[in-house]
Amino acid sequence: MGKSPKTERDRKDKVTVKAITEVARKISGRIDKLSKPDIVFPVRSLGNVKYSPKKGYFEIGKDKSIRTLTVNTAKTFAQSLKMMSLSKELVETSDFATKRDAYYQSKNWGEAMFREQTESDTVMDDIEAMFSIHGVSREQLRYIPDEHGGAVAGELVVFDTDLESGKTERIDCTRFGSGAYSIPSLVEHLTFETKAKFVLCIETGGMFQRLQSHKFWKKARCILISMAGVPTRATRRFVRRLSDQCKLPVYAFVDCDPYGISNIYRTLKVGSGNAAHINQFFCVPQASFLGVTPQDIVDYKLPTHPLKDVDIKRARDALKNDPFFKHHKPWSTALTQLLKMGVRAEQQALARWGLNYVIDEYLPAKLKNVKKFLP
Amino acid sequence: MGKSPKTERDRKDKVTVKAITEVARKISGRIDKLSKPDIVFPVRSLGNVKYSPKKGYFEIGKDKSIRTLTVNTAKTFAQSLKMMSLSKELVETSDFATKRDAYYQSKNWGEAMFREQTESDTVMDDIEAMFSIHGVSREQLRYIPDEHGGAVAGELVVFDTDLESGKTERIDCTRFGSGAYSIPSLVEHLTFETKAKFVLCIETGGMFQRLQSHKFWKKARCILISMAGVPTRATRRFVRRLSDQCKLPVYAFVDCDPYGISNIYRTLKVGSGNAAHINQFFCVPQASFLGVTPQDIVDYKLPTHPLKDVDIKRARDALKNDPFFKHHKPWSTALTQLLKMGVRAEQQALARWGLNYVIDEYLPAKLKNVKKFLP
Repeated sequence: MGKSPKTERDRKDKVTVKAITEVARKISGRIDKLSKPDIVFPVRSLGNVKYSPKKGYFEIGKDKSIRTLTVNTAKTFAQSLKMMSLSKELVETSDFATKRDAYYQSKNWGEAMFREQTESDTVMDDIEAMFSIHGVSREQLRYIPDEHGGAVAGELVVFDTDLESGKTERIDCTRFGSGAYSIPSLVEHLTFETKAKFVLCIETGGMFQRLQSHKFWKKARCILISMAGVPTRATRRFVRRLSDQCKLPVYAFVDCDPYGISNIYRTLKVGSGNAAHINQFFCVPQASFLGVTPQDIVDYKLPTHPLKDVDIKRARDALKNDPFFKHHKPWSTALTQLLKMGVRAEQQALARWGLNYVIDEYLPAKLKNVKKFLP
Repeated sequence: MGKSPKTERDRKDKVTVKAITEVARKISGRIDKLSKPDIVFPVRSLGNVKYSPKKGYFEIGKDKSIRTLTVNTAKTFAQSLKMMSLSKELVETSDFATKRDAYYQSKNWGEAMFREQTESDTVMDDIEAMFSIHGVSREQLRYIPDEHGGAVAGELVVFDTDLESGKTERIDCTRFGSGAYSIPSLVEHLTFETKAKFVLCIETGGMFQRLQSHKFWKKARCILISMAGVPTRATRRFVRRLSDQCKLPVYAFVDCDPYGISNIYRTLKVGSGNAAHINQFFCVPQASFLGVTPQDIVDYKLPTHPLKDVDIKRARDALKNDPFFKHHKPWSTALTQLLKMGVRAEQQALARWGLNYVIDEYLPAKLKNVKKFLP
């Protein structure tokens, strides 16, 4: 299993505390010298984003903005420092907080108290951006999302650690019956052991349930992940860490429509443009697109629905403005084909040929030609 | 563990097949006698719903509507029969289908093919209502929802069965680290073993993660369920079966606002008025309301937000029209108090007193006075 989850957590915690301490020391150094302290953030605008085909994700550029302590910024400045201090405390006590938790905690911060959660959310976004420069994610700062992780089943053992005793817990994802392992909000410390050959990320809960109940993962030697639409932060980070650590390719199996292709798959693989500072942690450049492809609609004679106006707008927009789709010729061709056909198809449309056609025919045929997957 | 999940599944499957066969036989009998066959449904309107304090849920009344085969109903009639036949096939092959799956399957039904999924959804709702008279749920007919189940952690062993080998799988919910057991779409066959004293259903993922990571279930000897908002069908049915089989009380821990009280808690406990025919399967009459109560806002000096217009409307509506709140005096008092205070509080507002105040103080204090929980 390589490193134990405790070792992994300790290693990351050291990096986090070091980053927090360094930023704080710099600020206090300036104050000691009676100069105005400042905090440096990357500029978060589309103008400061580029697509790096080599790294495989939307990357934040080098533009920085500096917040210097002034009369106007005094409160936000103090709140940023309190938020950093809370983060250090969370690391040191092996705890964590949601955005909401942090907001309510601030009720004890006197003058630095947040009046609205939108205020504390903004400061947290700032902190996240600031520490992304140091390669430290929000989750490493122990601020966790309040959203569900996805579900996992298949040839995978997850090692977690008991928060109180520090004991390692071994979670065998082959042993959940028709249920599954639900990904926790914080996955930084998890380590993995697997003999699987790939990770299959699935858009709908229904399709996941089918592949899981029929133990498709056993036959195909893989790990199934239910994304349930656009994958949450925890799910994306889980897939990324799993794929990195175990050197596994990731295949996406989603609906053939601009939402499945652009919002779900593109977000999974290269991240999103307006949160480029976090893509280094969350994107899964190892991902490729198994299907459903526009050509599958033709080859498998799938029942379709007409493209909606929003679909057409989304596809045209991707072709025209999205650096990812513009960079990859096969994608421009596929999206153009979809627009020309004027239809979309759901992954469950394969049920037209029988409920388990997807298991018996479609997926095995696809997996024989991994090199033909869309990039 | 009582019955094995396989025995449980076989028993229910027999009931289901018997119900389908009976309905089909009656129809074919009428046809043989050259009379027009008909199908009987309960009337699904609020006029045919009553609140049964004894049974503890919104119950469907005795009004029935009859669909007789005519030229106009021929197609829908045929589709209903095909849907019943598919259900029988699913039971016999140990399989299942989502609404979408059923829609796509119909592409092979010739003239009886559905043109739109809304058509097949309506027929499925009819079938569900029809078989509810026989005490058979949609899930027993093997039509599963396409939505996620909730997450479970704590003192519980779930027994599931391998769909192919029939072997029993033992899932120990104490052993998932910071992760959890994700409830499958179909829970009818699950059986349970537990020494827990109660089930705690939690509104937000963040609060669930806190209680799970700090193993609150160990200290309190309970089972934690993350509802993530209004619980899904699978989650409600899971809690109901767990509570029934293990004779466990269920406590709800949600935000103190009309949404948490009326939409989440009320739905969990007594079901909803416009789907009264399914409440017999899904409601959890054993549930009571731990908090956050309006009085808790006062007692714990919680940070609040003003009630929104939609909150006020919802609370007034509950007081005026909802048979559940009208029946239970303590609820009318609590809702009136909330309206008078004009504020709401989130469960995470307890973080005001420290992130783990909820574990160290709030929940233990509450659990000492279970009899004071709102009904």
